[in-house]
Amino acid sequence: MKTIKGGISAPKGFSAAGISAGLKKSGKKDMALIFSEVPASSSGMFTSNKVKAAPVILSQKLVKGGVSQAVIVNSGCANACTGKAGIKHAELMVRETAKALKIKAKHVLVASTGSIGSLLPVKKISKGIKRLPSKLSSIGGASAARAIMTTDTRPKEIAVAVRIKGKEIRIGGMAKGAGMINPHLTPHATMLAFITTDAKIKPSLLSKTVAQAVRASFNMTTVDRDRSTNDTLFALANGMSGAPEIREGTGDHRIFSGALGQVCVHLAKEIARDGEGATKLIEIRVRGAKTSIEARRAAKFIAGSELLKAAVFGADPNWGRVMAALGSSGAQMKPDKVDVSIGKVRVVRGGKGVKFSHGAARRHMKGKEVVYTVDLNLGKHEAAAWGCDLGYGYVRINAEYHT
Amino acid sequence: MKTIKGGISAPKGFSAAGISAGLKKSGKKDMALIFSEVPASSSGMFTSNKVKAAPVILSQKLVKGGVSQAVIVNSGCANACTGKAGIKHAELMVRETAKALKIKAKHVLVASTGSIGSLLPVKKISKGIKRLPSKLSSIGGASAARAIMTTDTRPKEIAVAVRIKGKEIRIGGMAKGAGMINPHLTPHATMLAFITTDAKIKPSLLSKTVAQAVRASFNMTTVDRDRSTNDTLFALANGMSGAPEIREGTGDHRIFSGALGQVCVHLAKEIARDGEGATKLIEIRVRGAKTSIEARRAAKFIAGSELLKAAVFGADPNWGRVMAALGSSGAQMKPDKVDVSIGKVRVVRGGKGVKFSHGAARRHMKGKEVVYTVDLNLGKHEAAAWGCDLGYGYVRINAEYHT
Repeated sequence: MKTIKGGISAPKGFSAAGISAGLKKSGKKDMALIFSEVPASSSGMFTSNKVKAAPVILSQKLVKGGVSQAVIVNSGCANACTGKAGIKHAELMVRETAKALKIKAKHVLVASTGSIGSLLPVKKISKGIKRLPSKLSSIGGASAARAIMTTDTRPKEIAVAVRIKGKEIRIGGMAKGAGMINPHLTPHATMLAFITTDAKIKPSLLSKTVAQAVRASFNMTTVDRDRSTNDTLFALANGMSGAPEIREGTGDHRIFSGALGQVCVHLAKEIARDGEGATKLIEIRVRGAKTSIEARRAAKFIAGSELLKAAVFGADPNWGRVMAALGSSGAQMKPDKVDVSIGKVRVVRGGKGVKFSHGAARRHMKGKEVVYTVDLNLGKHEAAAWGCDLGYGYVRINAEYHT
Repeated sequence: MKTIKGGISAPKGFSAAGISAGLKKSGKKDMALIFSEVPASSSGMFTSNKVKAAPVILSQKLVKGGVSQAVIVNSGCANACTGKAGIKHAELMVRETAKALKIKAKHVLVASTGSIGSLLPVKKISKGIKRLPSKLSSIGGASAARAIMTTDTRPKEIAVAVRIKGKEIRIGGMAKGAGMINPHLTPHATMLAFITTDAKIKPSLLSKTVAQAVRASFNMTTVDRDRSTNDTLFALANGMSGAPEIREGTGDHRIFSGALGQVCVHLAKEIARDGEGATKLIEIRVRGAKTSIEARRAAKFIAGSELLKAAVFGADPNWGRVMAALGSSGAQMKPDKVDVSIGKVRVVRGGKGVKFSHGAARRHMKGKEVVYTVDLNLGKHEAAAWGCDLGYGYVRINAEYHT
């Protein structure tokens, strides 16, 4: 697998664009379009929040067809808690995008992100939709990745290429999200993530493969344990690589699944790393769990601990906060079997603190990626979760930003 | 019911003391003793964290007897994650307290709070235990309430008196806790809470009554959603009021239960109000829930939202954060039925934002107590939860405090 340029517009037949339609007061880009030359197998995963934004409600229906050709996205307004008017506005985005691209409305997916409770400025949206098609380009991934940002400090994109039966297939991805990040995407998260690929794969297998990748990536990411009303992931596979169709359980499927998994983990880590006010990425590795569900539960719970996150901000090797979080995660554990390391510095063995070099632990914690390894010593399962530190920046962004 | 002075030493036959035994570098008080002239009915509730501190493990056994006469407490060291040595140290605290007071060791309960992972300085502890009995006094509640503090900025205590069959019975209480506060006390919580009363009541009914009070008070309080290894609540009832025994389901029981409930709610709110770095108390009132469990779940979940807490710190009437938290709380709800008010300002009706006076909402939010009322409009059950805002102070305390 090699990393290539182009983000979501890297796979064959895909183009993308990002423009400023005036939704953001800053004048920054706020509308993105992803387009495939031909209808593509599609799959969507959405927030498990019971309060779902209008574009989520609508796209859940649209993606059931398993075929999509375009994705229209706006930032600057979540179109959530907007009632029937919100649904109409989401429908309008789909209809006008279809018209501008001369494709079927049922082949258009929609996503929104921004603040909750305001109605979309439909005139601006309509004008934006009319301008977007002419901006579509095979190097437009970068613009699109900027256009979906809210409090993100940087765009998040990646593209990779792998070979299947001698043919190169490409997978592109972009994502946004910095606050209200604790996605739990279910197949039927305001993290937005978009995956494109020119692999040929049926919608059902695409959905299954994406769900598996999401479980170990986006769903293992938390910034603030607040779950959005708008979290959405779309994957489109247009088959234009020329490589044979990917079938379940084959070597090709493993190659595709592996590459997709890496794309998702990359984007999930980028989201955590760019968490609101974050200065560091926190990675929690849990090993020795009885089941992978327990490993994931423990890892994500620890990654979400406010006390741990503040300790990481302060580069304080306070391992008691890891033990306390682990013990209340609900994961099966025996306290006196637990080992904990900060970076490569062992700080807990058999549930008890050991003498360790505070200097070495602190040096690791002053880096940009702080890794805790927690070994439950009960079984063979493992998982990783990603979060970020809790610093003054988080408070500034979320207390001083006024609606 | 009237509020009286004296805290936990207010009920007849109870005395208390707080001293500095040198466990805290600051030289502040760090050991407390509560003593009843006669053996009392006792009840204990402890953290549901699977990682339990040594004093929790020991006291869980000791309280099973249902009779206690003294409680020994230290701050400055949690005696958690300390293995077998920790258990021995907790046992030593019990044994030496019994000896100093000339009572049975099985009648002594123990609790600790402070940082996790260090062994207790047993020599200092032993010396402290020898000094404490001579300091016991019927006005010692205030000293004891200070001695159990860690990052608390002020002691938390209360005492009330009610009449049962013409006789006055008193209930005293003290608590501590400012960080790692998200107790879920189960009958068999580093929030520490101590209740004394001179009412006459059997241990089993005392336990049942305390459990009911805890469910609507301490267990509805969260500072940071981090659950401690040391949370502990002890209640002692020595029967010295002279009032007749309280029997289940009687009017007397309702009076006692009501007063106990108010003592617990008072202390729980004091803990939330004094949360690490907190500038305000947040109260989330949930109404119209289908069951009281759902009401409690929704209220506590919303109270724990980092985004909401930061918005309260910034006095920003961002109701979208309430809707997002509610939707991911797991409580049964219909988004388009939900009404939300900030103070007396209605901000959401039927799941949608309504026009409201931002000025009025902000004025309420700039006060010391910020109340959100969430009506699910589904049923008749209600609950309240308490938390605090998330400001720069929380980060300072938890990032800059080094182990």
